[in-house]
Amino acid sequence: MKNLTITAPKGFLAAGLHCGIKASGKPDLALLYCPNGAAAAAVFTTNKIVSAAVTVCREHARSGRTFAAVINSGNANACTGQKGIADAQKMCQTSAELLGIRPEQVLIASTGIIGHPLPIQTVCEGLRKAAARLGEGAAAGLNFAKAILTTDTKVKNAVRTVKLNGKTVTLAGTVKGAGMIGPNMATTLCILTTDAAIRKPLLQKALRTAVDQSLNRLTVDGHQSTNDTAMILASGLAGNRMIQKQDGAYHRFETALTELCLDLARQMALDAEGATRMFTVVIEGAASAAEARQAARAVANYDLVKCAVHGADPNWGRIICAVGSSGVRLNPEKLTCKIGQITVFRNGQPARFDPKKVSRIIAQKEHTITVYLGAGIHSDFCMGCDLSREYITINADYHT
Amino acid sequence: MKNLTITAPKGFLAAGLHCGIKASGKPDLALLYCPNGAAAAAVFTTNKIVSAAVTVCREHARSGRTFAAVINSGNANACTGQKGIADAQKMCQTSAELLGIRPEQVLIASTGIIGHPLPIQTVCEGLRKAAARLGEGAAAGLNFAKAILTTDTKVKNAVRTVKLNGKTVTLAGTVKGAGMIGPNMATTLCILTTDAAIRKPLLQKALRTAVDQSLNRLTVDGHQSTNDTAMILASGLAGNRMIQKQDGAYHRFETALTELCLDLARQMALDAEGATRMFTVVIEGAASAAEARQAARAVANYDLVKCAVHGADPNWGRIICAVGSSGVRLNPEKLTCKIGQITVFRNGQPARFDPKKVSRIIAQKEHTITVYLGAGIHSDFCMGCDLSREYITINADYHT
Repeated sequence: MKNLTITAPKGFLAAGLHCGIKASGKPDLALLYCPNGAAAAAVFTTNKIVSAAVTVCREHARSGRTFAAVINSGNANACTGQKGIADAQKMCQTSAELLGIRPEQVLIASTGIIGHPLPIQTVCEGLRKAAARLGEGAAAGLNFAKAILTTDTKVKNAVRTVKLNGKTVTLAGTVKGAGMIGPNMATTLCILTTDAAIRKPLLQKALRTAVDQSLNRLTVDGHQSTNDTAMILASGLAGNRMIQKQDGAYHRFETALTELCLDLARQMALDAEGATRMFTVVIEGAASAAEARQAARAVANYDLVKCAVHGADPNWGRIICAVGSSGVRLNPEKLTCKIGQITVFRNGQPARFDPKKVSRIIAQKEHTITVYLGAGIHSDFCMGCDLSREYITINADYHT
Repeated sequence: MKNLTITAPKGFLAAGLHCGIKASGKPDLALLYCPNGAAAAAVFTTNKIVSAAVTVCREHARSGRTFAAVINSGNANACTGQKGIADAQKMCQTSAELLGIRPEQVLIASTGIIGHPLPIQTVCEGLRKAAARLGEGAAAGLNFAKAILTTDTKVKNAVRTVKLNGKTVTLAGTVKGAGMIGPNMATTLCILTTDAAIRKPLLQKALRTAVDQSLNRLTVDGHQSTNDTAMILASGLAGNRMIQKQDGAYHRFETALTELCLDLARQMALDAEGATRMFTVVIEGAASAAEARQAARAVANYDLVKCAVHGADPNWGRIICAVGSSGVRLNPEKLTCKIGQITVFRNGQPARFDPKKVSRIIAQKEHTITVYLGAGIHSDFCMGCDLSREYITINADYHT
């Protein structure tokens, strides 16, 4: 079996198990170990309130060398005060002791309910088991992927390879998505591995670019959480010449990383809370790059558009309404909208089209909505998903 | 029976009936007539794409004297090109002919589906019937209120009186709400009447203030439509001394109008699409007035907060998360949150509380969420409602 998990790149061991945070008995603790050490990079939520895990991870991501990452699900360890910070530190410290490394060489992330203290004893006991179960194969990677999930219905893994100086470099990643996914942030939790040899500052740059072009262009409900973290560990074992500057090898690596993250983002959209399908909004003819992005996001976030997509309803009026209220410049006489390849609104006037045909396009797993603003030359995109009754069910009763 | 409709102030006749726009057979055409003429004022959506009705009404609202208002529901007459403008003009022209006035003395508003041509012949025939049925009493006012509704489940009327120079002045209003209600606009359709004697520029000023403090502080789904319009006609028949400047009488009038609009806004929140309850978010301690407003709106618009309210779930973590991602300045060490009178989060730390008690507060028809940011002295509020499966049902299958 081909390994399509985060243990695919050379130099990584993983484990995932149920330690006891989740009452459901589902996996809730994940450990990644890179025995030879890795260059690491991370990006975080821009929410002003961040979890203890984010506070600690930001600090640890500055280390020159990273050997491990520990992730728990079922509890966000956010809004938990000083105890929260101590608990996050304890998670890193325990992992470090078990692996014979220093606490600051461990990255950390948490996801789950906000405001509840972490059962830290339970977590530390779980870590002991996880360290004992660390494995190299696909099964270990899959256990890791399962243990970071919350309301996700599926594990989300992706792998890419790229040739650098004749050597095959592998990149892999896993995400947890579902809800609280806004495009103005790192993302939900995303753990990436690669065996590329690359300097830490360039790895950070590549991660930022890749996330910006993928996870930052996905919106489920426009929300960013207190815990969003994307991290990458690069073991350097692929044998490629160390990437030291923004040369051709760097750009091929960055492109592969972006494609990997786009793949993960699409999996997140399709597995968003209650989602049955996804769509990509493409804005063309915007007066500025920022306005293109703003308009794309506004349409993808618009509840009424999301409901129409859920009903496979060619209600283009809501798309036009969303664009009009997004605050961007547009020319009403030139405004044009396509669903798939079918023009539904042309130069400010309704176009003739077969509603059944358009409905069938929307009913697919994925479709594209294109809006031409007629105000300039800039374009951008944003991915979104439909809004269903299931989203409400999931989110109305999550806490109690 | 006390008249609690828009025919309560002296000098107004109204009618409402089914002319044939709605397939359901429900009322879809409303006519208001002020035989002695009125000073009028109006505010409109800030959406860059506006309906033909808004384009025409903006022009007509400049007239020195207004005698009538015509409103249709079931069709927004938006994104309908030149035909849409001609149809809106035709509605005003037909009303004017029937009432013996000039077209520019008629205000107009439309609400319903976007992008479908208005069945203008049907509407004009309906106008003839409406003109023949114009009446002064509560029954006529109620018919008017019914005919402006779309997905609303109830008519929404309110009346206030205020003494000015010893004379009783009456103010009344009716709104249609339900969905597509964002706080960054006039509102959905809101038709107000008063028998106050007041100069047109002061009436415009009072309307803008009242709407800003009420309808602009209500969000159902954060959306503003292409058609949002609030208008007021002042017949001047109450016998008060003409309000000519911003004196005590003006301020009492403005306050009464604001209270009237708040009453209507609350009715809209409680009858929002799929809503089962409403809540008011109060932000205190903001660094600026704009940030207070921004934070209040962010919390009221946050789908996960709205879902938690629907589930009567004391999930304050989502409130903190919404505030943190709203982009406003805050002091994490001072951040405090109350649900009703119960503190659930104090100075950046979870507070002890009885979740059942808080759940009971949320389960009421209305409750207040208060967040103290610890960043300054400014405060503001925003009203919102819960998000239910019913919202999806209403909006997934509206078009086809």
